[in-house]
Amino acid sequence: MEFSNHLKSLVARVESGLDRHVPHAHTRPERLHAAMRYSLEAGGKRLRPVLVLAAAELGGASGDDAMPAAVAVECVHTYSLIHDDLPCMDNDDLRRGRPTAHRQFDEATALLSGDALLTHAFHLLSTAYGSRPATAVRLIQELGSAAGSQRLIGGQMEDLLGERNASITDGDLEFIHLNKTAAMIECSLVLGGIVGELDDAGLDALRTAGRNLGLAFQIVDDVLDATADTATLGKTAGKDARAGKATYVSRHGLDASRTFIRERTEAAITALGRFGERGRFLTDLARQLASRGT
Amino acid sequence: MEFSNHLKSLVARVESGLDRHVPHAHTRPERLHAAMRYSLEAGGKRLRPVLVLAAAELGGASGDDAMPAAVAVECVHTYSLIHDDLPCMDNDDLRRGRPTAHRQFDEATALLSGDALLTHAFHLLSTAYGSRPATAVRLIQELGSAAGSQRLIGGQMEDLLGERNASITDGDLEFIHLNKTAAMIECSLVLGGIVGELDDAGLDALRTAGRNLGLAFQIVDDVLDATADTATLGKTAGKDARAGKATYVSRHGLDASRTFIRERTEAAITALGRFGERGRFLTDLARQLASRGT
Repeated sequence: MEFSNHLKSLVARVESGLDRHVPHAHTRPERLHAAMRYSLEAGGKRLRPVLVLAAAELGGASGDDAMPAAVAVECVHTYSLIHDDLPCMDNDDLRRGRPTAHRQFDEATALLSGDALLTHAFHLLSTAYGSRPATAVRLIQELGSAAGSQRLIGGQMEDLLGERNASITDGDLEFIHLNKTAAMIECSLVLGGIVGELDDAGLDALRTAGRNLGLAFQIVDDVLDATADTATLGKTAGKDARAGKATYVSRHGLDASRTFIRERTEAAITALGRFGERGRFLTDLARQLASRGT
Repeated sequence: MEFSNHLKSLVARVESGLDRHVPHAHTRPERLHAAMRYSLEAGGKRLRPVLVLAAAELGGASGDDAMPAAVAVECVHTYSLIHDDLPCMDNDDLRRGRPTAHRQFDEATALLSGDALLTHAFHLLSTAYGSRPATAVRLIQELGSAAGSQRLIGGQMEDLLGERNASITDGDLEFIHLNKTAAMIECSLVLGGIVGELDDAGLDALRTAGRNLGLAFQIVDDVLDATADTATLGKTAGKDARAGKATYVSRHGLDASRTFIRERTEAAITALGRFGERGRFLTDLARQLASRGT
């Protein structure tokens, strides 16, 4: 009960933080800013910004202090979804139960709104933390690396190449999961830890927890894609199987996938152990995420 | 002669700087990094990075010191061209005399390579200037603003909306030119000035010079589109007229366009006057750019 109330309160703070730290829809050009907000406001679990705020709390930072970092992470995540949904990528019509950006607006507006959210993330970090330039630079280094060509975008590229390639290996699939999914989840915890001024050992623990949580989260997603329906997911279900796409589930089956989720979740919880009782919320969150797919 | 040798030497340094500060094509995923480099290596005048290096020299900064900022600016410029050429935007097959990225690779790879160049620009600034965090933060604030939803991307959005709208006003056209073109030229000079540690009055002068130079440069481009052929331009000529697109030339004619170019160039040169003899190279460069369209 305490967990669920705290989660609700963090999500509510994220919603108001997004409103505060992203240009209003009446800013010129209105269509562009309306599109940025349309995709941001589509909701979702707000997992990444919640992780930023929760990790910052480990170091005693207030939600207000960590909010720009949380918003930056959600902007990057949302841009990646908008571009991923485009006709030349996954060509998806539905996201979080609503038309995707290019269906609601048009392809060019969707493309540019993604570009704008990505740019805004870096600009926001540089202005909101501008009075603590050493902190700002560390946040931007971390986000730039996680979102870059060798991590988030690299993972999307290999995912795309994998769809066209029947001979994808387990190693390729791990590269995709580590980068396309785990990079930004890892980055969210680390960004929160930087704002909360954790020491290097604390940041390392968050990085390990984030990587394991991210891998578990991806397999949960694969399990749900294979077992849930479109209404429950808010996005097209069974897509991977129909596309003949290699996933952990298609390669190893549901039982092995559920074992993998449990193992990775326990590894994340072990890493969080160094924070003792203060790590309780993140530990509960890891268990809740795992329970969706097991 | 001295001008032309200095320009050649700056361009050559930019070419080797791009090679040094952008991941190699054999970095995983190879296809993504090959596409990033394909578009970057297509060449062009390297106007923006040359402006960064030349502005940094005003403050006595070495080319090595300013190079990461020069590369960051060229990465942002190149990403904007890649996305602008996509089928959902201008749908162009030719850029700098070679197939555009989506023709050479495919749409998804082009999209992701643009995303990756944009992300790399911010990451590069945060790492290369990480030992001087206050400088790094100012550079990122400046680039984030110039490349953001109210400037570069905003200008592209209004340009696109203008193509669909016969009732575009002179004010709309100025908004597009100020943001789609002038923002990054202004930003290039200011970034160089920040690395060169110019004072606020010096940065203001560079901003004024850059805005005027950028506006002149856009009208030069419009004049060339209306008067030169595709082989000379290295991109499709006469495109604006065929698309029935409103340009300064189509609205005001060639004579008025040439007067505008001369006036804006003189305004840029006046602003550069505060640097005396040290501003000579930038003054010569402004005159050379204007001469292409007059």
